[in-house]
Amino acid sequence: MLEELKKRVYKANMELPRHGLVTFTWGNVSEIDRETGLFAIKPSGVEYEELTPDDMVIVDLEGNVVEGHYRPSSDTATHVELYKAFPQIGGIVHTHSPWATSWAQAGLGIPCYGTTHADYMYGEIPCVRCLTKEEIDGAYEKNTGLLIVDYFKDKDVVAMPAVLCKNHGPFAWGKDAMDAVYHAVVLEEVAKMAARCRMINPDVQPAPQSLQDKHYLRKHGPNAYYGQEKK
Amino acid sequence: MLEELKKRVYKANMELPRHGLVTFTWGNVSEIDRETGLFAIKPSGVEYEELTPDDMVIVDLEGNVVEGHYRPSSDTATHVELYKAFPQIGGIVHTHSPWATSWAQAGLGIPCYGTTHADYMYGEIPCVRCLTKEEIDGAYEKNTGLLIVDYFKDKDVVAMPAVLCKNHGPFAWGKDAMDAVYHAVVLEEVAKMAARCRMINPDVQPAPQSLQDKHYLRKHGPNAYYGQEKK
Amino acid sequence: MLEELKKRVYKANMELPRHGLVTFTWGNVSEIDRETGLFAIKPSGVEYEELTPDDMVIVDLEGNVVEGHYRPSSDTATHVELYKAFPQIGGIVHTHSPWATSWAQAGLGIPCYGTTHADYMYGEIPCVRCLTKEEIDGAYEKNTGLLIVDYFKDKDVVAMPAVLCKNHGPFAWGKDAMDAVYHAVVLEEVAKMAARCRMINPDVQPAPQSLQDKHYLRKHGPNAYYGQEKK
Amino acid sequence: MLEELKKRVYKANMELPRHGLVTFTWGNVSEIDRETGLFAIKPSGVEYEELTPDDMVIVDLEGNVVEGHYRPSSDTATHVELYKAFPQIGGIVHTHSPWATSWAQAGLGIPCYGTTHADYMYGEIPCVRCLTKEEIDGAYEKNTGLLIVDYFKDKDVVAMPAVLCKNHGPFAWGKDAMDAVYHAVVLEEVAKMAARCRMINPDVQPAPQSLQDKHYLRKHGPNAYYGQEKK
Repeated sequence: MLEELKKRVYKANMELPRHGLVTFTWGNVSEIDRETGLFAIKPSGVEYEELTPDDMVIVDLEGNVVEGHYRPSSDTATHVELYKAFPQIGGIVHTHSPWATSWAQAGLGIPCYGTTHADYMYGEIPCVRCLTKEEIDGAYEKNTGLLIVDYFKDKDVVAMPAVLCKNHGPFAWGKDAMDAVYHAVVLEEVAKMAARCRMINPDVQPAPQSLQDKHYLRKHGPNAYYGQEKK
Repeated sequence: MLEELKKRVYKANMELPRHGLVTFTWGNVSEIDRETGLFAIKPSGVEYEELTPDDMVIVDLEGNVVEGHYRPSSDTATHVELYKAFPQIGGIVHTHSPWATSWAQAGLGIPCYGTTHADYMYGEIPCVRCLTKEEIDGAYEKNTGLLIVDYFKDKDVVAMPAVLCKNHGPFAWGKDAMDAVYHAVVLEEVAKMAARCRMINPDVQPAPQSLQDKHYLRKHGPNAYYGQEKK
Repeated sequence: MLEELKKRVYKANMELPRHGLVTFTWGNVSEIDRETGLFAIKPSGVEYEELTPDDMVIVDLEGNVVEGHYRPSSDTATHVELYKAFPQIGGIVHTHSPWATSWAQAGLGIPCYGTTHADYMYGEIPCVRCLTKEEIDGAYEKNTGLLIVDYFKDKDVVAMPAVLCKNHGPFAWGKDAMDAVYHAVVLEEVAKMAARCRMINPDVQPAPQSLQDKHYLRKHGPNAYYGQEKK
Repeated sequence: MLEELKKRVYKANMELPRHGLVTFTWGNVSEIDRETGLFAIKPSGVEYEELTPDDMVIVDLEGNVVEGHYRPSSDTATHVELYKAFPQIGGIVHTHSPWATSWAQAGLGIPCYGTTHADYMYGEIPCVRCLTKEEIDGAYEKNTGLLIVDYFKDKDVVAMPAVLCKNHGPFAWGKDAMDAVYHAVVLEEVAKMAARCRMINPDVQPAPQSLQDKHYLRKHGPNAYYGQEKK
């Protein structure tokens, strides 16, 4: 069963260069098997063209490597915190995709300017603060996870499957690894359009709430009618 | 005959990813057969790489599915209204192409700054208002169509084959599906250049009317002389 | 000999999509044989993927088609005027390449901000005015050529192998068709960098004259030392 | 042994077009063999698609060509000065990559806005002044090298493996040719994100020093923990 998990995580990782979200090794995807509490994640600093499913590293929810001939991604501790705090999510992705990272560097959340955004993400995509010196000098990657967890503690991680970390870059998640990658692609498209939209009209306002509600609920929840019946 | 229609609509849909106009499944093209009053349209939420001509859905002008094993595009009701109101058009395309969508999110029409625009679209590409809460909560996609129809009721849909819907994205049309896609590509190029043009010179004014007239009429109408004789 | 000319012009035309300078059929390249006074040019409105060397149209310096089964480019009269006025040039290209066209729409010349520009083009790339209503309503394409000729009548077309036509787009030229395409590519790169440079620093000034002189003369003139010895 | 050096330099040069850093022949990479004091460098003005390992030119630290059937890159004298001054570096690359060159033309250093930058480059990427008329009219390429050397005389060229030359473009370096190219790619990504970041938020400030320290030291120095154990 872990072989299947590794294959899925491998495949999801390989989608990152295909969608132009990564340069070199600057990204990682994981997926958790909730029954065993183990997740598979990309090894740290290994080139995408050299990756194989067998290179994926299996980690438990205390961050211990259970299986694998490589070190796991240096962001593994962030993944651990998110999986522990949010049982609703099954896959996580981190990238330095250029448009989303530009917003993160700018320290601003991405307002919902239209339906492309509203179709997948409900409301403004948040930008959490930079960590403090103490948090950075301590368990940096774990503290990144705790900060995200703290931000979402009274919010819906399903309706907002992405976050920007100030001066760093985005994390996105979903029901599995591939769904998380899907959201990372949406995020990059939305970040690009929002930046250009503000360049065209610096006084632009977010889309009306009723439009945001309509588009999100057209694709999600019991009355969704976009796409085909799920089999 | 419907087989030919489906093939043409399939082919026109496949042009969208080829021209970089769509991410994932965010676009749809249709073409109508005016004799039977039936049109073929892309199914909702099906990946482009998996599409076949046989997956196209046949719909009548009341929005009923006449043939097909998939649900039609969620924007089908918009297509229906445009086909009903404008007998001059034979194909319709909707995308979230990034530059045109950025203008739609900005809520601004695209002024005619040069001949690339004037060659295909006569005057400013309009941006119609966002729907009201009542229109959104009601028959949303149909109301989108009605709003476009209302805007063009005293205008020429042949001379202006595209529109932006505020906070949403563009629709384009033409004499058939492929012609509609052609206009969607022109729109994206024109939207890109207009945004950059304003970045370079914030005080830029639209091109003189005489130049707009010249270029549009060089390609359209009885005295057109661009391209080869139509056989 | 015309067969060789057609092949070279065909090949130069095919470089335009390869370098991302054209969408659809929005560009044309020609090259003149100065001995016969005949030039070969792309046919009007024919798709690049369908072009063959045999489709090139042979035109004389009065604009008459001498050979070819297609109509020549609608911009042929502009090419004629440039070839007549400037015996130093052997090839001409017109495109709607996005960055150069954005500057043309903005109505601004492109200042020389650095050595990429100075290596090939000496000084600011000029933007000539839009034609008047009378010039547009008359022999439009010929008048476009005459306007460019008038601008350059006391200038060096070898040291400045490109021009922007306000509200329209760029023309570039060179010693043959391939050299003209080379300059069209340089122009697009330079236009892109200049726009971004001004976005980064709105107060930027042109590069010092001594640097412009150095780089241009490093590649051109009797003391050039860039590249390999010409055989 | 020089054959191996030429192969490595050839391969590193071919990475430039693959990563979109060069147009035509506008870039060059070299690598030095510190034992013999000889370095291999790309020949001047030869197309990438025609290059072979055997075309690389071998040059000594006085700038003399020791081996090769082509002239070396016109920037060879700059490489010489950098190799002479900085024994820590083994490879050098020069390009006109569009985003980095736009910053160089703008005459501004690139502030460290986030971890993508901090992971590889410690602090602001400097932009050195334009050469004076005397420096330009004299040994231009050598003087470019001397200016860079002077800037770094009391700084760490390992912690900052890139520089922008005002009105010109970037140089980057590393422990060998491939490492220098890696840094040139990082520079271009960072330059792109920094420009967009300022477009999104004109008041953006550099990332906190503690974050810059953390990310640089996570990848460099005795306590680095990114990537796999070096074998």
